[in-house]
Amino acid sequence: MKIEFKPIGVIHTPFTEPHGMPIQPAGGIGVKGTVEVFEEIRDGLKDLDGFSHIILLYYFHRSQGFKLTVTPFMDSKKRGLFATRAPNRPNAIGLSVVQLDRIENGVLYIQNVDILDGTPLLDIKPYVPEFDGRPNVQTGWLEQARKTIARRKSDDRFRSEEIE
Amino acid sequence: MKIEFKPIGVIHTPFTEPHGMPIQPAGGIGVKGTVEVFEEIRDGLKDLDGFSHIILLYYFHRSQGFKLTVTPFMDSKKRGLFATRAPNRPNAIGLSVVQLDRIENGVLYIQNVDILDGTPLLDIKPYVPEFDGRPNVQTGWLEQARKTIARRKSDDRFRSEEIE
Repeated sequence: MKIEFKPIGVIHTPFTEPHGMPIQPAGGIGVKGTVEVFEEIRDGLKDLDGFSHIILLYYFHRSQGFKLTVTPFMDSKKRGLFATRAPNRPNAIGLSVVQLDRIENGVLYIQNVDILDGTPLLDIKPYVPEFDGRPNVQTGWLEQARKTIARRKSDDRFRSEEIE
Repeated sequence: MKIEFKPIGVIHTPFTEPHGMPIQPAGGIGVKGTVEVFEEIRDGLKDLDGFSHIILLYYFHRSQGFKLTVTPFMDSKKRGLFATRAPNRPNAIGLSVVQLDRIENGVLYIQNVDILDGTPLLDIKPYVPEFDGRPNVQTGWLEQARKTIARRKSDDRFRSEEIE
């Protein structure tokens, strides 16, 4: 079974290279970007401006291949790939919850961005705490490290061999 | 640009028909399901059992086509598609945060499930509040309705014409 998707837009950010990027939106506080939604589907943006936060699903277009265990940015031990947010995955889908400031002419102005410039957009969903937030959770190997997320940056470890 | 994905597993739940399902995990409290991860990538599950909650990304395999404005389950007015969580989308990717009870032989035992039986799994990510949770958000047209999510069920409105 093959599933085929087509980008519905492009994400523009200040990050033109994977190296040195914030590793999550929490590390990209105040970083601004835009989401350019392709014209033919802009009518689908109606009512979205009432939401302060949105979920962007996108294609990690610079990822290539994957390993089933990886050493994440926030650890020095090898971890199972699905216990990490590493971009090199069997289906290289990225997920970021970002702040939505406004929408003008099919362009979303967003904040707290950890996404590479030129990233193809796959979907936009409204962020709803009752759907997407969970209190009192356990986070395994990340339990200690997660408090330092805002200070961490990426390095070259997930760099793919081929640069487009 | 075409992006091709392949399922990495299958989600099993008590919901064999879209009609009458909970519309979000909040409405599926206590509902149990399993995620069968295909053997060739099971090594990637290492360390995941330390997380109490995971994000499942999956393919809305029963969706077919889309409209840019829809009347969501929780409203009587037409809303922009991207301001809703309707399954019929340009790229029909579903997202649910579910509780992870345990992992045995490549099978994830999950709870609070709002997913259709037989759904193809695309990705698993650990749920981390600092990455994925946001306090103090505005939720536009859902602001009032979201308090009643747990009581709502789906109906036939997103039924696709073709049943596999």
